[in-house]
Amino acid sequence: MKLTFLGLGHMGQGMAACLLRAGNPLTVYNRTAEKCASLTALGAESAATAAEAARGADIVFSMLADDAALAALVDDVLLSAMAPGAVHVSMSTVSTRITDEMTAKHARHQRGFLACPVFGRPDAAADGTLRLCLAGPAEEKERVRPLLAFMGEVWDFGAIPSGAVAVKLAGNFMLSTLIETLSEAYSFTEKHGVAPESFYNLMSNTLLAAPAVKLYGRLILDARFDEAGFAAALGAKDIGLVRDAARRSRTPMPIAALVEDRFLRLLARGWGKRDWSVLSRLQREDAGLP
Amino acid sequence: MKLTFLGLGHMGQGMAACLLRAGNPLTVYNRTAEKCASLTALGAESAATAAEAARGADIVFSMLADDAALAALVDDVLLSAMAPGAVHVSMSTVSTRITDEMTAKHARHQRGFLACPVFGRPDAAADGTLRLCLAGPAEEKERVRPLLAFMGEVWDFGAIPSGAVAVKLAGNFMLSTLIETLSEAYSFTEKHGVAPESFYNLMSNTLLAAPAVKLYGRLILDARFDEAGFAAALGAKDIGLVRDAARRSRTPMPIAALVEDRFLRLLARGWGKRDWSVLSRLQREDAGLP
Amino acid sequence: MKLTFLGLGHMGQGMAACLLRAGNPLTVYNRTAEKCASLTALGAESAATAAEAARGADIVFSMLADDAALAALVDDVLLSAMAPGAVHVSMSTVSTRITDEMTAKHARHQRGFLACPVFGRPDAAADGTLRLCLAGPAEEKERVRPLLAFMGEVWDFGAIPSGAVAVKLAGNFMLSTLIETLSEAYSFTEKHGVAPESFYNLMSNTLLAAPAVKLYGRLILDARFDEAGFAAALGAKDIGLVRDAARRSRTPMPIAALVEDRFLRLLARGWGKRDWSVLSRLQREDAGLP
Amino acid sequence: MKLTFLGLGHMGQGMAACLLRAGNPLTVYNRTAEKCASLTALGAESAATAAEAARGADIVFSMLADDAALAALVDDVLLSAMAPGAVHVSMSTVSTRITDEMTAKHARHQRGFLACPVFGRPDAAADGTLRLCLAGPAEEKERVRPLLAFMGEVWDFGAIPSGAVAVKLAGNFMLSTLIETLSEAYSFTEKHGVAPESFYNLMSNTLLAAPAVKLYGRLILDARFDEAGFAAALGAKDIGLVRDAARRSRTPMPIAALVEDRFLRLLARGWGKRDWSVLSRLQREDAGLP
Repeated sequence: MKLTFLGLGHMGQGMAACLLRAGNPLTVYNRTAEKCASLTALGAESAATAAEAARGADIVFSMLADDAALAALVDDVLLSAMAPGAVHVSMSTVSTRITDEMTAKHARHQRGFLACPVFGRPDAAADGTLRLCLAGPAEEKERVRPLLAFMGEVWDFGAIPSGAVAVKLAGNFMLSTLIETLSEAYSFTEKHGVAPESFYNLMSNTLLAAPAVKLYGRLILDARFDEAGFAAALGAKDIGLVRDAARRSRTPMPIAALVEDRFLRLLARGWGKRDWSVLSRLQREDAGLP
Repeated sequence: MKLTFLGLGHMGQGMAACLLRAGNPLTVYNRTAEKCASLTALGAESAATAAEAARGADIVFSMLADDAALAALVDDVLLSAMAPGAVHVSMSTVSTRITDEMTAKHARHQRGFLACPVFGRPDAAADGTLRLCLAGPAEEKERVRPLLAFMGEVWDFGAIPSGAVAVKLAGNFMLSTLIETLSEAYSFTEKHGVAPESFYNLMSNTLLAAPAVKLYGRLILDARFDEAGFAAALGAKDIGLVRDAARRSRTPMPIAALVEDRFLRLLARGWGKRDWSVLSRLQREDAGLP
Repeated sequence: MKLTFLGLGHMGQGMAACLLRAGNPLTVYNRTAEKCASLTALGAESAATAAEAARGADIVFSMLADDAALAALVDDVLLSAMAPGAVHVSMSTVSTRITDEMTAKHARHQRGFLACPVFGRPDAAADGTLRLCLAGPAEEKERVRPLLAFMGEVWDFGAIPSGAVAVKLAGNFMLSTLIETLSEAYSFTEKHGVAPESFYNLMSNTLLAAPAVKLYGRLILDARFDEAGFAAALGAKDIGLVRDAARRSRTPMPIAALVEDRFLRLLARGWGKRDWSVLSRLQREDAGLP
Repeated sequence: MKLTFLGLGHMGQGMAACLLRAGNPLTVYNRTAEKCASLTALGAESAATAAEAARGADIVFSMLADDAALAALVDDVLLSAMAPGAVHVSMSTVSTRITDEMTAKHARHQRGFLACPVFGRPDAAADGTLRLCLAGPAEEKERVRPLLAFMGEVWDFGAIPSGAVAVKLAGNFMLSTLIETLSEAYSFTEKHGVAPESFYNLMSNTLLAAPAVKLYGRLILDARFDEAGFAAALGAKDIGLVRDAARRSRTPMPIAALVEDRFLRLLARGWGKRDWSVLSRLQREDAGLP
């Protein structure tokens, strides 16, 4: 069985490495070829073009930047290079719209298509501890599931690929709202003479004792926004995708509307490369806190 | 040492019972006397008036409905009935404004005053597993802390009583926002063909695996809003207190503003007695879901 | 007929002067006595105390800073000093709550009570070109209407005094929202390479050719926020009164919630004394405009 | 000089008729040919295809439904059918993004391109009393300005076509916000016992005496939402374009975010074909008004 991985950014590299370390042969390709080096060291085959990488593959994993990159790869390469019956597993966080379009296009060309966006930062990608949101036809899901399991925990969201994308977007919506909500609560307690850290300790150990609360609650307290675990520009992109899908599906989401607007302000401020928890800086300024 | 507990609603009864079961003598009073019965069965002394209950007490705990009830109790009863040096522990969720006023008033009359609002529903009050947010002068906190420990876990928030109230309000703000955010995320995934339950399973077991997420995520899914664990009218009161304190402290909180407005809509709908997670019904209607 | 005017701030002075210039005898009182000078020059009688001013008056006009000032005047002075059957015309912008309380209190003491808050800046008060929002019992309205007509145009809003207050608050809500909306539209067009002034010219001469649009649209363009026609702190007070009345009447108003929060940010910034159109500065900053 | 008009919907028909009635020869085309009948009766030449209509034209006016229709017309027809040096005047309300793309494309093919979206309903299109927002290169603007003047008042917004589109979108943002704001104010006064009509009379005759306030204030009072002057689905489209342009230009606009979300709710409700002032129905429901 030929496996191919396309798109070797921070996330893709770790995910491909998980497949290789588990003993799977893997062909890789990236536009900037040097990204392949660490993987060929692990035994990967490096292809000169995406088409060459995809040719004859049974399963193609893609992990790309955005809608445009996915559409270009599919239209220019995959639909011709992949064999009929092969399956493309799209792992990027893209729009529900492009996902529906890709689903239809692969079907028309008798290629399989699954959406499988992931939760987790690059360290989880490297460790094989991502959470993967899988959706698509049952038969194809069964074929790829054992491979996906090398990258992390697989959660099944049914037969419609864009459903898995919606889950991923909804999750990121909850995280960005959490950052905003914590920021408001912190400045509120601080204005009342209470150290935000003591509020954090209470919440993160009791009612809201969850990994994301511990992570973001701590990040905001430490105000170390310059080492971006997840860049604000990407956060803005994702909450933008939430709003696009909300509009398309006619789902009013007043908090999502508010949070997207906060991210626009953050971008206008020129903070796109900082960690998305820098959203909390806006809140401090608004409250007149130093 | 004479201990007194005033205000025996759903919460106060359980809290007073915890003190009694731990072997503390306790004088109790409630406007409607029958609420005292279960406590006298546990050995409590029942007083005929609040003044009689408070007279000669070393420590008076109060658990009341709102600002007006607290102000009336303090002005009409406690400042005269309590002995100089006695301590009043105010456990109600009230405004930061009345808390500051009560702090000043007790000080002028040489009576001790601590704020100690609590997190937890009636069952946690009965079990002695509340979370108590304590603030006030150190010496007085030390005196009451061993007693409070019978009611639950004591968290210290410094020397300013209204600081503890701010923590309680900030916590309730986070919970009401969580309900709204989950509601939006659920309708979003449902509109994309994904069962909200499967989104709930992912979130409540991974990134947002916290007690409050499990509780409210499940309540919303089950849509059993008629057995109110916490009535929407009380939720509306508390988010109103958040906004009042935000205004008073000049803390802009855009999400709190939005959420308070949603609660007004809920009250206008006549749903004040249902569980506050009924907020999710508005979201479903807005999204055109049945 | 004895007429009395209490409260001679920027607005009250002009309004009292209108009564005098029309030939009405008038007794005036202000806490800081020098404010009376310009009015005694016009023939006013200056009283040493509010009680003396109100004693024997047939009609008492009051124009005060806030709820507390109105309640103090009524409780400490008017209910005893005014004769039964005399009418108190409350022209301040206060809460609907205090207005309802004052209505009930005057009724219990057989004194007449009308609410008549006004639209217009100090120059309109001086010119007698205010817009007056009158409500209360018909018979009493008829008695004061000819006098009010010297101060401006009288609009009738029925029998419930707090109804006139609601109209005044709703009007100020529309004006503050207009300022925010214009600010957003200006930064939007500017970011697209179009001078806000040309957008202003179009709107203020066509679809939105209204006095308030011309006034605020121009103020924002000129960015002369330091000569406060209406101070931001007063704007914040009024939108706060809107929200209080919305809560009390269970009227969700999402835009009012948003706008109040913007005003809190403005106060936290320390801009309370600037003109309330300084709200537009926040918008420019958020958009990254200089 | 050959003039061509493409797109004969409710608006386009009236605009084309204005050109004809002023004595200009005009070639017209519409996908559904019967729309041409009333114009050929006025002397128009009817073409069998868009290409035939555009061939040899000096100036082509287009008035289309959306981005997709404009892009298709330009790519498939105009760039080849129009002669070099000819000018295309795009009068549709489309996105700033497509406008920038069209601007670049026409330039690359040496065709002139102007944006000229319009304010006004079909009756104003028929009467020649639209407001036209014109932007593009000066020389081309001068060529078309005398013709545009037959359709209404021409306002100039500079050299960048998407600037005129931004003005149109900003104007529609102000109108949709006006509808929402009036709706909130009306329900607020009604809940305080004041007839919204009396509030309307005050506002529309004094501070906010503007055509749009008179129009929408009255429409909401009359609640005649079924004869759509401007359909809610179009309003939703336009506020969606505002948000898209806000995102693209990094302009936070909190009120626009809120208003777009209200329109999504309206669409989810199935009210897309009613007049966009039906937004006020949501507000009444939220306030618990019949």
